[in-house]
Formats: sequence, C-alpha cells, structure tokens
Amino acid sequence: MILTSKTNPVIKTVKSLSDKKFRYNLGLYLVEGLKNVEECISAGCDIQKIICTEKWQDRFENAVLVSDALFKTVSTETAPQGVMAVVRIPETELKPPRGDCLLLDCLQDPGNLGAVIRTANAAGYEEIYLINCTDPFSPKAVRASMGGIFRVTLYSAYRKQILDALKGVPIICADMDGKDVFQFTPPKRFCLCIGNEGSGISEEVSALADYTVKIPMRATCESLNAAVSAGIAMYALKNHK
Amino acid sequence: MILTSKTNPVIKTVKSLSDKKFRYNLGLYLVEGLKNVEECISAGCDIQKIICTEKWQDRFENAVLVSDALFKTVSTETAPQGVMAVVRIPETELKPPRGDCLLLDCLQDPGNLGAVIRTANAAGYEEIYLINCTDPFSPKAVRASMGGIFRVTLYSAYRKQILDALKGVPIICADMDGKDVFQFTPPKRFCLCIGNEGSGISEEVSALADYTVKIPMRATCESLNAAVSAGIAMYALKNHK
Repeated sequence: MILTSKTNPVIKTVKSLSDKKFRYNLGLYLVEGLKNVEECISAGCDIQKIICTEKWQDRFENAVLVSDALFKTVSTETAPQGVMAVVRIPETELKPPRGDCLLLDCLQDPGNLGAVIRTANAAGYEEIYLINCTDPFSPKAVRASMGGIFRVTLYSAYRKQILDALKGVPIICADMDGKDVFQFTPPKRFCLCIGNEGSGISEEVSALADYTVKIPMRATCESLNAAVSAGIAMYALKNHK
Repeated sequence: MILTSKTNPVIKTVKSLSDKKFRYNLGLYLVEGLKNVEECISAGCDIQKIICTEKWQDRFENAVLVSDALFKTVSTETAPQGVMAVVRIPETELKPPRGDCLLLDCLQDPGNLGAVIRTANAAGYEEIYLINCTDPFSPKAVRASMGGIFRVTLYSAYRKQILDALKGVPIICADMDGKDVFQFTPPKRFCLCIGNEGSGISEEVSALADYTVKIPMRATCESLNAAVSAGIAMYALKNHK
C-alpha cells in the first residue's frame, strides 16, 4: 500500500517532528536523505520507522511507502531524495565526561551546531554538553551533522547541572583573547568551550575557565564563523598532545 | 527626498544585483547590513552608492534615502537593518601570488565560499584563485565573508589560465588521503587547494598536486564541512612554519 493522504496518522506524526515541541513530547526526531538514513542504521540508532517512496522500496523492506507528492509535503528538504527515518531521541543521563569533551554555550544557528557535532565526532570529542543551544535534533542541525549526531553523546541541561557534571575537568574557553591555541599545550584531559555566534562565551561560563585560548588572526579580521573556529580549536588542541 | 517607488531607476539597479548576470554586466555588487557596509568603507572599496532608511540618514550623509517598506523589497536579507551599499567589483588582472594563496576548485555553496574567504583573510591567505566556483559577489557569499571579501584579492578565470598563473608554486591539495596535515611541513611558499563539497578536487587539478594532505578523522566520519576543513587546513599549514 502506498500512502497518499496527508491525514494519515503516520504522516501527521512525521510532519509534527519539524516542531521542537512535538519532537520532545514524542521523544522522536527526523533523519532525512539516503546517506543519513544509512548512517543512522549502521550506527545502531533506535529507528522507529523508515518512510520512503516507491523508488526505494527494495532497499528498505519494512518501510512505510508514500507517494512522491506526499513525501514532498512531509520532507523539510528542498530537493527530497525520498527516504527518511523517524528515530528515538537518545535518553542520556547527565554524566561527567570519559574523555576530551565539548561545552557549547548558547550556539544558536542549527547549521553551525550540526557542523560542530560533525567535526567533534571526526576529531574525537565524543561527549558534547549543551547549555541554551538551538535544538541539535532539528532537521537542519541533524542534516548539517552528516551522521555525526549518531556517533556522539549529547547532554542538554540547565547551566548549573552541566557545570556540576564538568566539575574537576579543566575548561578551555575559545575566545578573542588568550593564549595562541597553536602555542598552547592543553592538560591531559580537558573540556573545550565554544560560545555564541555573536556574543561569545557567557560570563557565567567564562568565570569558570581554567585557560583561555584564541585563534591568531590578521588585524583586518575580528572573528571567524563559529563552526570554523570550533573546528580549528578542536584540532589544534588534539594535535598538541 | 525619500524614495518609495519600486520603479525608480536606482532601486531597479539595486534589485537587479541579486542576479549574477546583472552584477557582471554592471560590474557592481551589493553589500548589506551596517557592519558590512562600515567594513567596506574602512577597507577603501569603490562604493558607488549607499542606500539606507531614515534611521541611518545622519550616519550616511550622501546616501539615497528609501522608505522602510521599499528597503525590505530590495534587500536580500530576511531581517534587513536598513543599510546597503552598491560597490564596484574590483577588476583584477590575473597574476602569480606574492605570498601563500588558496586555490578553490568548484566550491558551490555561497555560504561555504564566504566562510572560506573570511578565514583566508584571518589566516593570511591574501590571494584566492577560483576555478568554477559559485560567485563570490553574490549577496549570500558576501554576507558570509563578513568583510573578508574586501580584504583579499580574488582571481576568477578558466582553469588553464589560473593554473598557468600558479606555475612554479607548490600546490598542496587537501583530500581524503595523503599526509596528516598536522605532521606535514609545507614548503616556504605554497598554494593550498580546496575542492568541491561533494566530489573534492577535480582530476585536472589533482594531477598537478605537489603534495596531498588530509585532516585525520575517526573512522566513523567520512568528511567535514568544506568551510571547516578549509579552515583547519589553512591554520595547520600556517602554524607549521
């Protein structure tokens, strides 16, 4: 059977997942596109349903089949490929990090957050603590993470709780001033903190910094894109060890 | 006088600059937002006109004043601030680089291209050679460059011409394989090449690589965002010297 109706309950649920409120009410998020869905399967995520068009029915045997026209109305992509998955948002209990980790303080752009998660996974920052960030499980952030979100552990909580969990872990803030990150030898174990796109790291978090590092820049440049500077700092610190 | 009509010739010209064809016919591009316009002024760019709403008339004395409603229709921004400039696209004669430079091969996303230009300026890659890239003077690329585009020299030409201009300069390609960029000592002078978001560096350019470097990644990650990986490679090479 191929679904064609917008009022079908599965379709209504899928459509509602573009909205943060429904994502957290249901504990579900959307993964769109062939590559992302395949990554999600190979990472062993808790997939509740795969939805696809006829084109993909041999590849995804137990998928819910929908018409091309209906798929377009539920997808958040401009050029949907015809495959998406409904995946359970992992329930993680807030814990101190086991290795080097990231602390993201008020990162607001979903594309930046996704790109930071993608780089964190690549560079080996497997635990990411989020304070007041945009939702990492929004379709745009998930897409930009390019599978990274399936491979790292995310902790979202109130600032105080997050900072309590990080107690005892040296915090390195990436800021406009501080030591040149390429000249700096980090401690054996650390948490790298990245701030908001416009205003940087909040006062409350800055006050707890054990070290502050900067990326050296020519005088004609004030700052870098948040995902780019996070990437440079993550790699610079890892490659000093 | 405050312009309110969409049919005013200045307004029609400004509107046309969202379109690449008109940008290059007129040799003009748009710079939007207060910070970008101020950067553009301080960089000494060839500004033809400043267009602003009443709010900014004291700050920009010779500006063309337009109504808030009309400004919204000409701006490409979702939340326009009420200031934009019409700027001459610099006419650059293709030349060999004087210092370390970038070669961008088929970069297609304007946000990525702008972010790469922003980072290049910060890291001191002052000359950027473009082969088959998206237009760096599109409103989206200009915005993402955050003033960087006013500070670097851009060369766009056919592949053969660009490669001729780079003759004799060691080319370092950033790719999936190759030497770890953090373990690699670059030659005194070099050109760093970054490829397309999906397919990487073209065969024609790869064939000319003197060195190939990669950013080390965990096995669960295949690639990074183009602007992020360009930023990491640019800084890693500069900080090995």
